[in-house]
Amino acid sequence: MEILTTVATARSLVKNKPLVLVPTMGALHKAHLQLIRIARAHAGPDGEVAVSIFVNPLQFEPGSDYQRYPRPEKADEDFCRDAGVDLLFRPPVGDMYFDDRSTFVEETSLSSVLEGKSRLGHFRGVCTVVAKLFNILAPDAAVFGEKDFQQLAIVRRMVRDLNFNIDIIAVPTIREDDGLACSSRNQYLNVEERKQATVLRKALMKGAAMAGDGEKSAARIVSAVRETIEQAALARIDYADLVDAESLQSIEVVRPNSLLALAVFFGKTRLIDNIRLP
Amino acid sequence: MEILTTVATARSLVKNKPLVLVPTMGALHKAHLQLIRIARAHAGPDGEVAVSIFVNPLQFEPGSDYQRYPRPEKADEDFCRDAGVDLLFRPPVGDMYFDDRSTFVEETSLSSVLEGKSRLGHFRGVCTVVAKLFNILAPDAAVFGEKDFQQLAIVRRMVRDLNFNIDIIAVPTIREDDGLACSSRNQYLNVEERKQATVLRKALMKGAAMAGDGEKSAARIVSAVRETIEQAALARIDYADLVDAESLQSIEVVRPNSLLALAVFFGKTRLIDNIRLP
Repeated sequence: MEILTTVATARSLVKNKPLVLVPTMGALHKAHLQLIRIARAHAGPDGEVAVSIFVNPLQFEPGSDYQRYPRPEKADEDFCRDAGVDLLFRPPVGDMYFDDRSTFVEETSLSSVLEGKSRLGHFRGVCTVVAKLFNILAPDAAVFGEKDFQQLAIVRRMVRDLNFNIDIIAVPTIREDDGLACSSRNQYLNVEERKQATVLRKALMKGAAMAGDGEKSAARIVSAVRETIEQAALARIDYADLVDAESLQSIEVVRPNSLLALAVFFGKTRLIDNIRLP
Repeated sequence: MEILTTVATARSLVKNKPLVLVPTMGALHKAHLQLIRIARAHAGPDGEVAVSIFVNPLQFEPGSDYQRYPRPEKADEDFCRDAGVDLLFRPPVGDMYFDDRSTFVEETSLSSVLEGKSRLGHFRGVCTVVAKLFNILAPDAAVFGEKDFQQLAIVRRMVRDLNFNIDIIAVPTIREDDGLACSSRNQYLNVEERKQATVLRKALMKGAAMAGDGEKSAARIVSAVRETIEQAALARIDYADLVDAESLQSIEVVRPNSLLALAVFFGKTRLIDNIRLP
């Protein structure tokens, strides 16, 4: 595995094979392993898989967990090596952002709802860093998880609108055995919070079951979802919303391609999850 | 000369030679010829020169000259062929912008002064379309004229901040025999306006001469420049400013790398020009 620690070395890579990128913020876990596997399958026998690890300050709002976000460098490196990654790109912050940086990529429609409402500037940070990674590594494809459904939709929109010549590959959410979606932030949870966090999946399944049984009212589904979550004493709902999976706009009546999405705090830890309705 | 009229065909070009791009809005004139020549020199004997012609709606403010901007298709095509251009990229608007486009590239520092103050959203449009052209054609270098000095500075900043792997080549302003900077908008001028428009270059030379003679006060230089312009009865000054050529921020005292920039209306036609102080 080749480890690239500067933008300059990453840019000077001679590209003569298909390259598939898995952009991450590190603290790698089994969902990342799945992203890497899908990347490998997509790259084909002659292609290469690159993982980028960069905790992107631009996508953290002021006062959020940028400082305490886990950065297990050695473990992540071993993880990538064991996973058969070909290139690990791990630049320092000062190499990615000049102090007088002033150019940003902004998505203005899909970013205005859900996470974008709760986390001001988050998606501007995501779009900007993803555009930079795309330009630095020039991958043929990049892999994103469906847990961050809105991020995936926004990256797809950015790729379309700015004509990046890069395939975006979506990977279904990977879960722990008890249904909790894998996330680097799960390690913030204490034992009791971790136990109660399984309510998220339960609530999503409840909503999906209602829709499966023919319930069409978004209000009634969301209300049942909220009630389910509120049974967990430590849960504090940020949002629970039924949206169109394309436009991410709230809908009142279940339609094909509806998405139930939620963000819930357990203590200081904010978790997100989503499910497509049947 | 190969003519590419869709984004898809432009993207599917197999790139095995160095490519130098000259982005234009058409209505080509002798300054463009110089850009093409510089592009050719930079491309080398094995390289290719691409010209893009796209009147970019996103960089025109509401109520400006987007509709009446000249689009002499046939003449431009002949011009490129005569100039030895290898690739002409001329996409329709609907192929460049989806109706629900929502991703933009925004430069927030250099864009806030001079042209950016007078033309809201202009540089967001410029950055967005240049990023798109870069992604569609994947050139190794791109050529921009110094007449649009601020645009050049902003494109350079965008390339740096977003890590485009593209050299930006600056070409000194090309002028008519009487000193007026070549511009597609000069053809809007009536005979009397055209005659008086030479005052712009005179005013810039006056400012440069003062600085050359040791004048350090930006206020006194700008005041003399304004007086010179005001001798032309049809001239209406939008701005005349002395700025640092890097930051584009106004300065009070002449320093190395100072730039005198101005925008002046003649009737409805707005002309810009600039000069570096000695």
